[in-house]
Amino acid sequence: MVNETQHTSSSSRSEGGSSSGSESSKDNSRCSTPVLDADRHERLREKMRRRQEAGDKWFSLEFFPPRTANAAVNLISRFDRMGAGGPLFIDVTWHPAGDPGSDKETSSMIIANTAVNYCGLETILHMTCCNQTKDDITGHLQKAKRLGLKNIMALRGDPAGEEWEEEVDGFNYAVDLVKHIRNEFDDYFDICVAGYPKGHPEAESYEADLRHLKEKVFAGADFIITQLFFQPETFLKFMKDCQAIGITCPIIPGIFPIQGYHSLRQLVKLSKLEVPQEIKDVIEPIKDNDAAIRNYGVELAVSMCRELLDSGMVHGLHFYTLNREVATTEVLKRLGIWKEDPRRPLPWAVSAHPKRRVEDVRPIFWASRPKSYIYRTQEWDDFPNGRWGNSSSPAFGELKDYYLFYLKSKSPREELLKMWGEELTGEESVFEVFTCYITGEPNRNGYKVTCMPWNDDPLATETNLLKDQLEKVNRRGILTINSQPNINGKPSTDPIVGWGPSGGYVFQKAYLEFFTSSEIVTALLKVLKKYELRVNYHIVNVKGQNITNAPDLQPNAVTWGIFPGREIIQPTVVDPVSFLSWKDEAFALWIEQWAKLYEEESPSRMIIQYIHDNYYLVNLVDNDFPLENCLWQVVEDTFELLN
Amino acid sequence: MVNETQHTSSSSRSEGGSSSGSESSKDNSRCSTPVLDADRHERLREKMRRRQEAGDKWFSLEFFPPRTANAAVNLISRFDRMGAGGPLFIDVTWHPAGDPGSDKETSSMIIANTAVNYCGLETILHMTCCNQTKDDITGHLQKAKRLGLKNIMALRGDPAGEEWEEEVDGFNYAVDLVKHIRNEFDDYFDICVAGYPKGHPEAESYEADLRHLKEKVFAGADFIITQLFFQPETFLKFMKDCQAIGITCPIIPGIFPIQGYHSLRQLVKLSKLEVPQEIKDVIEPIKDNDAAIRNYGVELAVSMCRELLDSGMVHGLHFYTLNREVATTEVLKRLGIWKEDPRRPLPWAVSAHPKRRVEDVRPIFWASRPKSYIYRTQEWDDFPNGRWGNSSSPAFGELKDYYLFYLKSKSPREELLKMWGEELTGEESVFEVFTCYITGEPNRNGYKVTCMPWNDDPLATETNLLKDQLEKVNRRGILTINSQPNINGKPSTDPIVGWGPSGGYVFQKAYLEFFTSSEIVTALLKVLKKYELRVNYHIVNVKGQNITNAPDLQPNAVTWGIFPGREIIQPTVVDPVSFLSWKDEAFALWIEQWAKLYEEESPSRMIIQYIHDNYYLVNLVDNDFPLENCLWQVVEDTFELLN
Repeated sequence: MVNETQHTSSSSRSEGGSSSGSESSKDNSRCSTPVLDADRHERLREKMRRRQEAGDKWFSLEFFPPRTANAAVNLISRFDRMGAGGPLFIDVTWHPAGDPGSDKETSSMIIANTAVNYCGLETILHMTCCNQTKDDITGHLQKAKRLGLKNIMALRGDPAGEEWEEEVDGFNYAVDLVKHIRNEFDDYFDICVAGYPKGHPEAESYEADLRHLKEKVFAGADFIITQLFFQPETFLKFMKDCQAIGITCPIIPGIFPIQGYHSLRQLVKLSKLEVPQEIKDVIEPIKDNDAAIRNYGVELAVSMCRELLDSGMVHGLHFYTLNREVATTEVLKRLGIWKEDPRRPLPWAVSAHPKRRVEDVRPIFWASRPKSYIYRTQEWDDFPNGRWGNSSSPAFGELKDYYLFYLKSKSPREELLKMWGEELTGEESVFEVFTCYITGEPNRNGYKVTCMPWNDDPLATETNLLKDQLEKVNRRGILTINSQPNINGKPSTDPIVGWGPSGGYVFQKAYLEFFTSSEIVTALLKVLKKYELRVNYHIVNVKGQNITNAPDLQPNAVTWGIFPGREIIQPTVVDPVSFLSWKDEAFALWIEQWAKLYEEESPSRMIIQYIHDNYYLVNLVDNDFPLENCLWQVVEDTFELLN
Repeated sequence: MVNETQHTSSSSRSEGGSSSGSESSKDNSRCSTPVLDADRHERLREKMRRRQEAGDKWFSLEFFPPRTANAAVNLISRFDRMGAGGPLFIDVTWHPAGDPGSDKETSSMIIANTAVNYCGLETILHMTCCNQTKDDITGHLQKAKRLGLKNIMALRGDPAGEEWEEEVDGFNYAVDLVKHIRNEFDDYFDICVAGYPKGHPEAESYEADLRHLKEKVFAGADFIITQLFFQPETFLKFMKDCQAIGITCPIIPGIFPIQGYHSLRQLVKLSKLEVPQEIKDVIEPIKDNDAAIRNYGVELAVSMCRELLDSGMVHGLHFYTLNREVATTEVLKRLGIWKEDPRRPLPWAVSAHPKRRVEDVRPIFWASRPKSYIYRTQEWDDFPNGRWGNSSSPAFGELKDYYLFYLKSKSPREELLKMWGEELTGEESVFEVFTCYITGEPNRNGYKVTCMPWNDDPLATETNLLKDQLEKVNRRGILTINSQPNINGKPSTDPIVGWGPSGGYVFQKAYLEFFTSSEIVTALLKVLKKYELRVNYHIVNVKGQNITNAPDLQPNAVTWGIFPGREIIQPTVVDPVSFLSWKDEAFALWIEQWAKLYEEESPSRMIIQYIHDNYYLVNLVDNDFPLENCLWQVVEDTFELLN
């Protein structure tokens, strides 16, 4: 009977009888985190295997590094948007001419770093080896490892001159790079290599090229991504040929949705591929009609992808996006593999740095600024796992440079001025900006306020639940920057407040965070006495004067989830110690993001400066999550006391 | 305004302005546990101070070590019962003639160790110093520290002969011991010394004795417990005299409720105290009427204690119990300082060993055998705090000796035989024993079954909630040994399922653990397929065959609490790894506690042996705590399938 079931295991000991002793030594397969999502704990090759075993089709996205800092800001937003569709990974190409390993915000290294750390994307960094010394390569790899990158696409790259010359003691082929990575970094990196469905243009023959590919795999590559191709049978033949000579690792077809006449020509030139006549026949007549070409390209890609997936041999599709969004997204949506409503593993955006794998608690303060939080905690060696109180290092790094490209507002100065006011006339005009942001209605000059210094995105769906009350209080000078409703056990699959695996229940304590004047704080403190046992508060001004009723500097869990067969997860806390780091950032944003839009000494600037210098930052938690949120009543009582 | 509030603090930095940087270094006052009850984290002297500041009256209890192993078992039960009344501490006396520092189960050292580790009581170990070498004393102190004892009552002790001779280079006075402890152990121990309200009988004078007391305090003693006295004014005068010469530490009056004529005479002889004539006058005429003397003693003690407490100078009362329960309990109840319904800081009995201070998660399996759990984890260096998964060492020690006195059943063999059957006729007679334990009704021979091998106490109040269903399933061979109902957010002050500080909410997943035959397990497994997403199960036999649907060996939290201003506490988990250690213990208890009551080869013994060899131990968790417990339906379905 026992052996009929799936989950049977027999302990290695079988003393039986009446023996009373027992020891169960630490099982190394246990990890210290509840593994809410296996994705955070698996290597890329394991993820591929698991998806394949589950019959789960996936996709990945290729990007090249941007040329300008502004383009980098846009690319990062694109990572966030396209990341929401659920790619298994993205990859960033490597162009030796562009200083790809440098610290420039446009380098391949830094873009890949940003994708991993700040966008939470599994990322492959391309790396070419020809014309580089071993030390250079090792340096790049060490840097990649330090930054949390775990996957390398090992490429030869293009030779410096026209003629190909072998270098003695250098890297001549991608296989040399694969061997070098395995020699120097053991099994740390997952390694991907390129496959050429039509054979590499420089190879002696298609067969010779297949043998080269086999060498790369046997040298330690984990999977293959192919060069683009135009016909599904090209790939399927290639795959069978690979298998025939003993290549068993995953082979992922590279898909190139044709997006325009010129980009196609350029790519064809670079890759030395030939465009089939039937495609040329369609394209040539419409070559000046971008929309028509793109539509055709999407059609073509969808039908090719369908054929590949239907073959049963293909489990994932790799897209050459050319850093564009529309065509690839369209193809993916039509294939039905774009995730419309991706499940959130945790209520906040996780980072993909391996050292943050166990991280499952964060202070609520950075809810709308996760990249800033990741930046300020990047030097931490340990991340809180289970308990915030366990964090070995709650010391936050400084945030001096508000213009780090991954923290920068998507909106340019002129737009911000339109939203937040070309000219402020008093504190009330600031109240108005906050109110318009909440309501979504245009300000007095007809512009919608779609972002704030503390939040670069429009109001979250969840916050929308509180919209009416938020509007009321912002109008009167309770300038809210963060809030959540109380939740008493909704399903973890709830489209608005749900997170984590299905079958669970999520909970929240009501939270409200706002700036307000000292007059309001005085009244508020009197009101809070009535709520002493129910509401925890922290009230602080820019100078650090700090008023709180939190017991013993303990963190207060405000979001938690109960899941089948798991320990409790409490991903969000109100932590009194980190609040003091957050307040520095929150107050500074008044100046850095808002005041500095105006001339020095200008009345507008002085109004923001006054608020910065005199207002308090307040947070309130209603501990009685099963009852109706009392925080609105607290605010109501405060206004009443003031009248 | 800010300065008007109580909780004002100003951060040491006050950069102000638009400075954007911030660092908040780790605050050392934060600890890694949520400090559910300050009691677990404070030293005894801090507890005293906090109670005094809160105007909270307390009591403590003095015991002497027992003479026999049986008496030790009884004394430990008494610790558990009297511990429930909420003493601030207990203390254990030291008698050099009785090998007090040895490993014997009756030694002062081991009794104090048991009180701390297994009964969770703050404990003071007495220690005398005369006629002992420094090395002996240091050895005793080191051992006490190793065992988790944190408080020493430093005494001189009685000289060996009739005549008092000073030893050169030895300990001659308690003050020498106090100094030695402070020299060798710094501030590790809290030190208590004895005060003599009438002066020490050997002192030159009352005043000289006060000066000696001051010396002891100034040498490092933290508080004073006095010798017994018969009149409140004796103590109050003594206290004022102490204060007059600069003794400011707490002075705790020693209360001796007269419990019998002979014990009084003996104590008077030993302490060289004189019984006031008015007491003699009452007692002499009733000296043969124990009840009358005890009643008088209780009256006298109550009225004396009231007078002391009313004086405003006394915050705690120390009782010389003479290892008896009735009189002291009666006095405490009449004074209103016996806690009738002590709040449970956690759902299980905590240990007072300092290294277990942070412990706040345990597997549910040992719920009825907390002393066994503590014993088997005594070698752990770290205790799970917040997450069970964090436990650095889930390796359980062996439990070979089921007759360790603090694990021993309170009932002797003859009683067990009456409860569990002088002669078993088959598995059904075992079912009957389980059923009678659940129902509380007498078995076929007219005896109530008040304990089981897995549970030395009658059914818990909480389990009573499930009584009807438990009865039904035990009758049919689902032999339950542990269970809890599901709870969806009851107040933490709930008298039955509540725990932790007030103002919180407690939750539970329904749990059921039982032994049952392989036929039932076969049917059960078929039924469980229908509940795959809802019910987690672990099914194991004595040989270690293990069937489970738990994901990745993850623990499942089955009891948790949400409190104001705290992180989530999840004190009880179903942990797949520890379950295998528990199953060894659970199966062995059949043999050790039950089978061995019968002759070898006897039919009764063979029945138990058969069950031990062939039954399975099953645990079930219903993850859907907000819904009606489905585990009864699972069992119902199983029986239906069998029919």
